[in-house]
Amino acid sequence: MLKQDELGLGTKLEQSKGSRLMNRDGSFNVIREGMDFWESADLYHAALTMSWKKFYSLFLLGFFAFNALFALVLVLSGNDVILGEENVALPHRFWDAFFLSVQTFTTVGFGTLSPKGFFPNALIALNALMGLLLTAIATGLIFARFSRPTAKFIFSNQAVISPYKEGTAFMFRIANQRKSQLLDVQVRMILAIENEKGGRDFHNLTLQTDKIMFLSPHWTVVHPITPESPMWQITESDFSAKNGQMLLLISGIDDVFASTVHARISYHHPEIVWNAKFKPMLKDDPNQVVVDMKQLHEIVLVK
Amino acid sequence: MLKQDELGLGTKLEQSKGSRLMNRDGSFNVIREGMDFWESADLYHAALTMSWKKFYSLFLLGFFAFNALFALVLVLSGNDVILGEENVALPHRFWDAFFLSVQTFTTVGFGTLSPKGFFPNALIALNALMGLLLTAIATGLIFARFSRPTAKFIFSNQAVISPYKEGTAFMFRIANQRKSQLLDVQVRMILAIENEKGGRDFHNLTLQTDKIMFLSPHWTVVHPITPESPMWQITESDFSAKNGQMLLLISGIDDVFASTVHARISYHHPEIVWNAKFKPMLKDDPNQVVVDMKQLHEIVLVK
Amino acid sequence: MLKQDELGLGTKLEQSKGSRLMNRDGSFNVIREGMDFWESADLYHAALTMSWKKFYSLFLLGFFAFNALFALVLVLSGNDVILGEENVALPHRFWDAFFLSVQTFTTVGFGTLSPKGFFPNALIALNALMGLLLTAIATGLIFARFSRPTAKFIFSNQAVISPYKEGTAFMFRIANQRKSQLLDVQVRMILAIENEKGGRDFHNLTLQTDKIMFLSPHWTVVHPITPESPMWQITESDFSAKNGQMLLLISGIDDVFASTVHARISYHHPEIVWNAKFKPMLKDDPNQVVVDMKQLHEIVLVK
Amino acid sequence: MLKQDELGLGTKLEQSKGSRLMNRDGSFNVIREGMDFWESADLYHAALTMSWKKFYSLFLLGFFAFNALFALVLVLSGNDVILGEENVALPHRFWDAFFLSVQTFTTVGFGTLSPKGFFPNALIALNALMGLLLTAIATGLIFARFSRPTAKFIFSNQAVISPYKEGTAFMFRIANQRKSQLLDVQVRMILAIENEKGGRDFHNLTLQTDKIMFLSPHWTVVHPITPESPMWQITESDFSAKNGQMLLLISGIDDVFASTVHARISYHHPEIVWNAKFKPMLKDDPNQVVVDMKQLHEIVLVK
Repeated sequence: MLKQDELGLGTKLEQSKGSRLMNRDGSFNVIREGMDFWESADLYHAALTMSWKKFYSLFLLGFFAFNALFALVLVLSGNDVILGEENVALPHRFWDAFFLSVQTFTTVGFGTLSPKGFFPNALIALNALMGLLLTAIATGLIFARFSRPTAKFIFSNQAVISPYKEGTAFMFRIANQRKSQLLDVQVRMILAIENEKGGRDFHNLTLQTDKIMFLSPHWTVVHPITPESPMWQITESDFSAKNGQMLLLISGIDDVFASTVHARISYHHPEIVWNAKFKPMLKDDPNQVVVDMKQLHEIVLVK
Repeated sequence: MLKQDELGLGTKLEQSKGSRLMNRDGSFNVIREGMDFWESADLYHAALTMSWKKFYSLFLLGFFAFNALFALVLVLSGNDVILGEENVALPHRFWDAFFLSVQTFTTVGFGTLSPKGFFPNALIALNALMGLLLTAIATGLIFARFSRPTAKFIFSNQAVISPYKEGTAFMFRIANQRKSQLLDVQVRMILAIENEKGGRDFHNLTLQTDKIMFLSPHWTVVHPITPESPMWQITESDFSAKNGQMLLLISGIDDVFASTVHARISYHHPEIVWNAKFKPMLKDDPNQVVVDMKQLHEIVLVK
Repeated sequence: MLKQDELGLGTKLEQSKGSRLMNRDGSFNVIREGMDFWESADLYHAALTMSWKKFYSLFLLGFFAFNALFALVLVLSGNDVILGEENVALPHRFWDAFFLSVQTFTTVGFGTLSPKGFFPNALIALNALMGLLLTAIATGLIFARFSRPTAKFIFSNQAVISPYKEGTAFMFRIANQRKSQLLDVQVRMILAIENEKGGRDFHNLTLQTDKIMFLSPHWTVVHPITPESPMWQITESDFSAKNGQMLLLISGIDDVFASTVHARISYHHPEIVWNAKFKPMLKDDPNQVVVDMKQLHEIVLVK
Repeated sequence: MLKQDELGLGTKLEQSKGSRLMNRDGSFNVIREGMDFWESADLYHAALTMSWKKFYSLFLLGFFAFNALFALVLVLSGNDVILGEENVALPHRFWDAFFLSVQTFTTVGFGTLSPKGFFPNALIALNALMGLLLTAIATGLIFARFSRPTAKFIFSNQAVISPYKEGTAFMFRIANQRKSQLLDVQVRMILAIENEKGGRDFHNLTLQTDKIMFLSPHWTVVHPITPESPMWQITESDFSAKNGQMLLLISGIDDVFASTVHARISYHHPEIVWNAKFKPMLKDDPNQVVVDMKQLHEIVLVK
């Protein structure tokens, strides 16, 4: 049995009885309070981990807002501020100012529209400088997103308690969605289960194999339920009543990033199917090894 | 007891008797002399570790100085050097040259102002080239700042000597300010205390747990003061008289950077409160785990 | 003997009897099916691992297509949409629009051609914004390609079974094509050979030296075929009949990347020459050590 | 004694008798031949490891050559190719074309000069595209240079054989030129010395301390010459006759790069001073620890 200390999950988890410790995406089910907005806002973390779609949407929004603001200030600053402007009525004036701002921020600078007078020129100089800086920041963030070593594992939606040799075993499947090779892939499996005293016990589970040289292309991770296992003779209803859940830590070396990548996942008791087994993923091809990735999540119940 | 050698803290520390070995931010209390300015100036180190505020202020200052310099050279180089200029009186001429320089450096290049003649054209070409290079350097630095794996730990302002089991223990608290997960967090605790011979002894202290799987979201690091501990039966006044201090080295794997991060902190004897304990940080919520980060530094004296 | 599990090569490889497990470039001879295009397309992986030639060709193609598309939309949007245009007949109009788009995308913006009216201005603003973003992505990818720690090993085209001490040994040669130093270079050699039961056995082979401090500039990796070796008393025809192959994993620290680099290679039985030895690579120079890299692949048969 | 194999320094070093194995900068004294120019040219390695001065000089040169070439092609392509040009006599025409190229490459694009006709427009479009790409490559290289974890150690110019306890010891000094902290600094010391059989022996030398927690700010590395040491009872003339040299591998964790950095150095027998000791580096200041970096290389002979 693991000391709860060694997990680092705090000391008073009784209060969260019945709940899930780790969410499916590997984050912890813990709420932090008492930090003010700027302390808790981890802008960099957000910029790195949000989806590309959200990243570009925010970029677009920021771009529009930035130029609209500069256009507004320019329009409000006076009448004869844009050289090359023909129509000085609104909304035409606003759009001229807006496009001038865009042409400055993006450093296109056609010159058919240009600032006139000291204040407009200074404003446009500031705009250009901020364009440089913000573009550098966006480029920097895009690099940081690109160069961050991340794993893209696919985990089977469900885990199973499956017949195995003379007894049974807890199993789940894992595959690499990337085309990179993963080397020296390691799995650590931890059982979290509530005890009679209202607390929680944590157990390191022994795996049939806990480290493989290549993940190519999938792996069925197996914990044999032997008499030494804390899962020994636990029934399905027992396991649910005690709010059983499996925490999994996976690491490996990605040969494209040339760096160690990490992943976490958990299987909560409703995601564990008893008396089931995984369908084979290898296709019946005599000439080559063909793996059908669609089968990764497929299970069949056994009598 | 550690050999002082293994710490790498030099051999003649008697002279700094009573002082702090390691500053609160983890830097060492040592002054290097005898390097000339360029040897000791570590511009890259400075550019990477200064605050964003300072970084951008320097950027702005540099931008203004750069363009003012080019404007000056252009104005001094002759009279009819800017195409599109209407007013050739000072300070108007200077500002035209300044804005032309800005429009070149930022590569906006409206063309309403442009260089006239060979020298102004060559000067402006140099300006544009330097613009490319300096922008690349700034972008490079911004990226290097972004991609540098750094930890943002919050340490409790004070450490305590607290009742623990049948005896007492030295404790401090640590939390992760970032939203990333920290895995395999490890702490090494070293006691530095002066001996009777006027030198200093260093001791590795045994921790209740020196490595946790997750820092989620905080951890109380505990050194139990058992008879084996060099802290055994040391009194508060003893500890101060001997200039006691704790050096702490923390490392862990940040799952966003996918890299090991390091931190150091020290608690000097005035920052250690005897007969006190930390307030709990978990809120009384039956449904979920809620951690009140405001309580991290809060201690109460025990009778 | 290794458990097949520990290699991670799946469990039903009988079907691929006689085939090569690992291709020469270190990728596995396994076909993944059942992922839709977007799941299996690893664009980032592709962008990082394609050749520079292909990378730049795609860049050029994308650039042309992007601008042609914008030109087309602009031309189709109306007649009087480009300021500064003199000839409004096709194909002249298309090329004006194309060059305007290029001048916008690259942020050159001469202004001799510029958008006229709201829609063209908005279109051109979008073009400029996308120019910024796509340039940032291209720059990011180029950087990610540059900063990715990769090894460039040269492996001898063939391996040999060579006389060695009183017996024989399996040998191959490896050199570093880069000018960087490789430190702590390690090799793991695995023999894959079919057994009588129609399956495959995997064996870790003991090397004379499995880790060297420097790879400078080449290394002959040697597995002595002693009575303890699974290669003991295997004949050449035996080895071919059993589809023998050697899988090799190499890692080392590259001092320019300051990072661990990995490589894989395999020698299939047709690439292994029995009763041969490598030619020496050192030139006969009394004054300095001169290594002739041309000899790396050269072998001579022994009587 | 180390097997020569484990160093990876090849097998026939007799021919380089009397020479230095490792140069002072840590590179090996080995010449590679037989690779054609493109195989052996490691452009990326060169771009990463050349000095900033050389890097920028090449950048400047390339910039000038690029624009001069485009200007030449433009001038040779016809007479009426630049819009805005007034003087069509040489060399004026060349410089107009040159500045137009510069304004395009840097994406400034004033527009006072601009291409006229299809071919000039296409040429300028190519110029702008190459400007984007080359700028991206330059920016990428600058990042890669910045983000590459490198150590800047200062090593004492000479090593000494110094009195130590009851006997003597081999010593050299090392300091960190950067302002970053170096943690867990490790040294591996290898003695290379010729034997009677005309070959070379390599020995791992035992250090008084081979790993320190902090390098702050300097460290004297000590190999005590005990009866167990291969240096035991070797005289200075012996050591020179046998072409003795020390190879040193240093590694540590730089807390700014948050990465392991590596360095190598060697002391050849002419750089080792017998019967000498290092001057102290600590200044006599009762209030704080002051280290005089100027003293790092200073030695004094002992009677």
